[in-house]
Amino acid sequence: MSIPTTAALDLSLEAAALTAALCDIPSVSGNETALADAVEASLTTVPHLQVLREGDAVVARTQLGRTERVVVAGHIDTVPVAGNLPTRREGDVLIGRGTVDMKGGVAVALRLAAHVARPARDVTYVFYDHEEVEAERNGLGRVLREHPDWLLADFAVLMEPTATAVEGGCNGTMRIRVTTRGRAAHSARWWKGVNAVHEAGHLIDRLRAYEPAEVDIDGLVYREGLQAVAISGGIAGNVVPDRCDVDVNFRFAPSRTVEDAEEHLRQIFDGYDVDVLDAAPGARPGLGEPAAADFVRAVGGQARAKLGWTDVARFTGLGVPAVNYGPGDPSLAHADDERLDVGQLEVCESAMRRWLGEGRDRGDCGLRG
Amino acid sequence: MSIPTTAALDLSLEAAALTAALCDIPSVSGNETALADAVEASLTTVPHLQVLREGDAVVARTQLGRTERVVVAGHIDTVPVAGNLPTRREGDVLIGRGTVDMKGGVAVALRLAAHVARPARDVTYVFYDHEEVEAERNGLGRVLREHPDWLLADFAVLMEPTATAVEGGCNGTMRIRVTTRGRAAHSARWWKGVNAVHEAGHLIDRLRAYEPAEVDIDGLVYREGLQAVAISGGIAGNVVPDRCDVDVNFRFAPSRTVEDAEEHLRQIFDGYDVDVLDAAPGARPGLGEPAAADFVRAVGGQARAKLGWTDVARFTGLGVPAVNYGPGDPSLAHADDERLDVGQLEVCESAMRRWLGEGRDRGDCGLRG
Repeated sequence: MSIPTTAALDLSLEAAALTAALCDIPSVSGNETALADAVEASLTTVPHLQVLREGDAVVARTQLGRTERVVVAGHIDTVPVAGNLPTRREGDVLIGRGTVDMKGGVAVALRLAAHVARPARDVTYVFYDHEEVEAERNGLGRVLREHPDWLLADFAVLMEPTATAVEGGCNGTMRIRVTTRGRAAHSARWWKGVNAVHEAGHLIDRLRAYEPAEVDIDGLVYREGLQAVAISGGIAGNVVPDRCDVDVNFRFAPSRTVEDAEEHLRQIFDGYDVDVLDAAPGARPGLGEPAAADFVRAVGGQARAKLGWTDVARFTGLGVPAVNYGPGDPSLAHADDERLDVGQLEVCESAMRRWLGEGRDRGDCGLRG
Repeated sequence: MSIPTTAALDLSLEAAALTAALCDIPSVSGNETALADAVEASLTTVPHLQVLREGDAVVARTQLGRTERVVVAGHIDTVPVAGNLPTRREGDVLIGRGTVDMKGGVAVALRLAAHVARPARDVTYVFYDHEEVEAERNGLGRVLREHPDWLLADFAVLMEPTATAVEGGCNGTMRIRVTTRGRAAHSARWWKGVNAVHEAGHLIDRLRAYEPAEVDIDGLVYREGLQAVAISGGIAGNVVPDRCDVDVNFRFAPSRTVEDAEEHLRQIFDGYDVDVLDAAPGARPGLGEPAAADFVRAVGGQARAKLGWTDVARFTGLGVPAVNYGPGDPSLAHADDERLDVGQLEVCESAMRRWLGEGRDRGDCGLRG
C-alpha cells in the first residue's frame, strides 16, 4: 500500500458535495494518482473495509462472510478537461468535467462503502484508472490480470451514467479497414487509371444501404450500427489514387460472437480487402440470473439495453452478470457542457441501499450518513 | 555568369550518346547546378551563340537580325531517380531516368544550338530548372519574371516528349476541395449523428456520373476529366465523422477560362462547400498562327491536343503560340522503366532542322554535325 500524499476525502459530505470534491481533483487518464491516493486515504479510515491497491486502482471490500458477493465499480479517470473545472453549482445542477462520467457514480459508491457497514451481500468496491483510453491500459483489466481473486463475485454493478436506469449487457464492437484498389495514372490521362476513391463510392453505397438489426435479448433491445469512422486516399494532386482505406465500426448485439461479426462484415464487403483492426465482444444482459433479477427488482424501473461497449463486458466475459446503473445523462458524457442533475445522486444511492440491504447485525461505521 | 565547375558536354556526340551523357549527370529538381554548369560551359564555346544564365537556367541565342525569332526550350530537371541510372543501351533503346522526360529533347536542342549556325529564324534556346515541382519554383517562370526580354519570340517549341507528334495547346487544370458536413456522435449511438463520410458517397456519385466533354479546337480534341485525387475524414475510431474532404482535379479544355471552370464545378457540387486549391489556365493550340502553321508543315504528321498542363501555357499566356514536340513516349515519363527509342531523336532533329532552315549565309560552327 502506498503512502497517501493527498488529504483524504470527507466521506461525510452529501453526495453532490462529494461529487464536486472528486471532480475538483482533476484526474485525466494517466494522471489519476492524486485522486487514487485521496480515495485510498479516505477508505482506509473506514473500520469495516479491507483496502487494497494496484497501481492507481483502489479496491475496498467487506468481509462479512455473506453467501453472496457483489462488485460495485467505477472509474476515476476522465477525458481531458475543457475549461470546465473547478465545478460550479447552479441550483440542482453541478457543472464540470467528470460530473456525469463518472464521478457522480463514484461519489455514490464511496458513500455506500463508508456508510453501509453491514450489507446483506458482501461488497467489493472498485475504483479504477485508465478507462477512457485504449483497452490495454484499462485499470479494471489490469486488476483482473494481476489479482483475479480480488474481483470474484456473483454480480457486478458499474456505476456508469445511465440516468438511473438499469442498462444490461452491451453491444460488441469491431473496427475493420476496408480497402479499395485502383490503378494510378496521371490525372490528365485519367482513363489510363482506375480511381480507387471513386470505387470507394460503391463501398459507401453498401454502408448506406445497410439496414442495422435491432435484436431482442432477455426483453432488452440491442440496436446495431455500421458506420464509416475514417476514410483516406490520395497520392498527389495530379494522380488518380490507386488505393482508398475506409475504416468501419460495427456495433453488434451480444447475440453475435466476435467471429460471427467478422464473418458478417466479410460478407457485406465481399470483393474488397478487409482487415480487422480491433474487436471486443458484447455482453448478454444476464438479467435472468438471480442476483441480477434481484437488482432490477430492488432499484425498480424498466431495464434497457446498453449500446456502448463498457467494462460490464469484462465481467460477463468471466461469467459474472453485470449491469450499468448510475447517475447522469449519458449523452452529456465527454461533452464540453457536461452537467449533472444532482437529484439523480439521491435516487441512485437510495436504490443501491435498498438492494444492498442491511444484515441482521445492522449498524454503520459511525460516520454521519 | 557563374564559373563552370563541371567539364563541358561534348556537343559533337550523336544525339543518343549526348542524351546518355545528359542523363548520367543526375539533376533531380533542386539539384540541377552541375548539369546547368555543363550545359553553360559547352554552349559558351559555340561562337554563334550569346549565352545568358539565370539561376540554373541557361539561355543561348543567335543574333542574326532575322525578322522572326523562335524559342526552343526544355527543362533539365527530372523526377527522382528510381535505381535507373546510369543509363544503359539495349539495341535501339536507351534506358534510364530522364531519357524520355526530357533529356532526349534537351540533347536535340543542344545539337541544334551547336550545329545550326545560320538558321532562317533567330532562335532562343532555353534550358531550365524546376519543371517537375510546384509551379512557383519553375525556372521558365522565373526567367519570364526576371528577364522577360530574354524570351521575346513569335513562336515557341517545348521539346517535351510527344513521340515526335506536334501537340498543340494544353488543357487547364483546377484543384478544388469539396467538403461534406455531418454531425459527430458516438458510433454506439450513430443515429444521433450524421455521417459525413456516408454523405461523401453522394458526392462521389456525382463524380462517377460526370461525363467529361471532348472539345474540338482548331481541329484538335481536348479530352476533359474530373477525378477525385484525395479524400480524408474521421475523428476517432468510435466517432461518427462530422466532416469529409474530397480533393477533385478538373482537367478542362482551353475553351474554358479558369473562371468558367470554377463556375462549372460549383454547379456540379452545388450544396457542398467548395474551395479552389489551385488552378492554371489551359492554352489554345494557336495552330492558325503563321509561325505555328509553318512548324506543323515542316515537321509533318497530324497535330493533336496536349492533355497534360505544360509550360506551353506560359508562352500562350504571353500571346506567344507554342507547341510541344519532342522525342519519347510520354506515357513512359516518370515511369520506373523510362526508356527511349533512340530513332526518335533523329526524326526530331531532322524535322527541327527542316523548320529552322538555313539562312543565305549558310554554314555551321565547324563542329561535327
